[in-house]
Amino acid sequence: MTRTTIESKTKTVTIGFDEPFCVIGERINPTGRKKLAAELEAGDFSTVERDALEQVACGAMVLDVNAGVVYNSNPNPNETEPPLMEAMIRLVQGLVDVPLCIDSSVPGALEAGLAAAEGRPLLNSVTGEEDRLELVLPLVKKYNVPVVAISNDDTGISMDPEVRFAVARKIVQRAADFGIPAHDIVVDPLVMPVGALGDAGRQVFTLVRRLRDELGVNTTCGASNISFGLPNRHGINAAFLPMAIGAGMTSAIMNPVRSVEMEAIRAANFLMNHDPNGTEWIRFARVLEAVKAGQDFATASAEVAAAGRAGRRRSRG
Amino acid sequence: MTRTTIESKTKTVTIGFDEPFCVIGERINPTGRKKLAAELEAGDFSTVERDALEQVACGAMVLDVNAGVVYNSNPNPNETEPPLMEAMIRLVQGLVDVPLCIDSSVPGALEAGLAAAEGRPLLNSVTGEEDRLELVLPLVKKYNVPVVAISNDDTGISMDPEVRFAVARKIVQRAADFGIPAHDIVVDPLVMPVGALGDAGRQVFTLVRRLRDELGVNTTCGASNISFGLPNRHGINAAFLPMAIGAGMTSAIMNPVRSVEMEAIRAANFLMNHDPNGTEWIRFARVLEAVKAGQDFATASAEVAAAGRAGRRRSRG
Repeated sequence: MTRTTIESKTKTVTIGFDEPFCVIGERINPTGRKKLAAELEAGDFSTVERDALEQVACGAMVLDVNAGVVYNSNPNPNETEPPLMEAMIRLVQGLVDVPLCIDSSVPGALEAGLAAAEGRPLLNSVTGEEDRLELVLPLVKKYNVPVVAISNDDTGISMDPEVRFAVARKIVQRAADFGIPAHDIVVDPLVMPVGALGDAGRQVFTLVRRLRDELGVNTTCGASNISFGLPNRHGINAAFLPMAIGAGMTSAIMNPVRSVEMEAIRAANFLMNHDPNGTEWIRFARVLEAVKAGQDFATASAEVAAAGRAGRRRSRG
Repeated sequence: MTRTTIESKTKTVTIGFDEPFCVIGERINPTGRKKLAAELEAGDFSTVERDALEQVACGAMVLDVNAGVVYNSNPNPNETEPPLMEAMIRLVQGLVDVPLCIDSSVPGALEAGLAAAEGRPLLNSVTGEEDRLELVLPLVKKYNVPVVAISNDDTGISMDPEVRFAVARKIVQRAADFGIPAHDIVVDPLVMPVGALGDAGRQVFTLVRRLRDELGVNTTCGASNISFGLPNRHGINAAFLPMAIGAGMTSAIMNPVRSVEMEAIRAANFLMNHDPNGTEWIRFARVLEAVKAGQDFATASAEVAAAGRAGRRRSRG
């Protein structure tokens, strides 16, 4: 049975076919967030703190941390990313106790993150590109961590799902050469926008099933890509996630501060028999009640969780 | 390729693996609706008229018609159902041009409906019970119509999905003895409440896939059973339907006057590549905009459809 284990100092999260879907919060990422990049350059980490707390309150089980800034004072990411990654990792793991996902295309930042992270973080990512394989797999081996494998290679991102499957297989094989087991590879089969490619959804469902059946690997994706450019994107995402889960997808890198998508995932967990007695669903229904009454999702989530903890303390006392 | 053809006087609906999901509107049914039963006894068909128009406006492709009343003046359904079924069928097919699904457990009502219906209605239903097989399959053959086959038998509803599959296979084989092809059998694998049986969702997904792969039949279900007794039922239904569609379910008997479920189905159609260019999704997003602005779903659906027709007339003119 394929189980990918990720750990913080105190908590273990298992990604697996018989586990609830693993939500990896994507928000701690300055890419395309100019205001956040400027804050970080000025040494202001308040947005990172809020993003960490809110995402965990809303149900993120792992937090992705990306330090991909372009500073006005220094445009060289090889110099700026590693120290920022280290600072962000230390900050986030001091605030919340979920495992982290170290996300960078700068090898120095990956290694700085690995050195700073407590427990067993997830590394994000390697691709099928030769230089990435040679740079990242030794880090995966050295630190004994699982890694996200994105199924593109030196020829780019293929529109042909057969090619994307072959790239994933190549990465799994190359990892095996380094002594890295398949259960430590979490494949991202790459989700195309269904508005541009009508078969994008079916491609992912078929790929996920094959990756599971033939390679025995866990899977992840940037879920919101599926709805790029379309009206009412949340509605597409909220159908895509249960369908992907039904096909065997075991995690996604996504924004958990969105009740529509989180509702779809919690319902899918229940329908996959990964929520015994619907305990999590019934608790989540109380959050949605509060949201309907006007509260924002993060606050409602935090308050229902706090009430639950207080209730458990009372029932023990 | 399995294609189940249902027809009204003027319209054909195909249920199939490569077709948009077939929504069969369930509302024209006095079972458990005392007010409606009393209206019908008094000869008042206004609720039936409204239910027919609203369901079609909201996206029902087929309308189920059930005349299962218990009159105060006459408690014998063998006497009351057949003439009421005939009257309701004539009324509904005079109002809307979608195919009908004739729904009764009273053989006389099934035959009265078959005699009154124009085109090629869907018969609802036969089961694996011996007396039902002997009563209903000759009607299916005589009128050359497709039939819903519910996978329970004389021993009741089995909790074991293997048994439900075996019952479905028996019905398909028995139908073949009557010269009825598998593509005219639409199997309902029976959906249990996930709140009572944690594996209810997975059972359905597995059964649907097997029914499709091994028997080559289309499938349907009473979709809302899955969420019976749970809070925030629409959230469960809205994840269940896409997951069932992803597993191969091709129709459901359901309430189409619910935007949450219809949104999930339209998104799933798009993700299955059964909505070329997302045309239906984009149109539906306009309906949801109007709903968000305060309009009720049926009115918003009717107005967006009318605007679309006017637009097409203008562009032709």
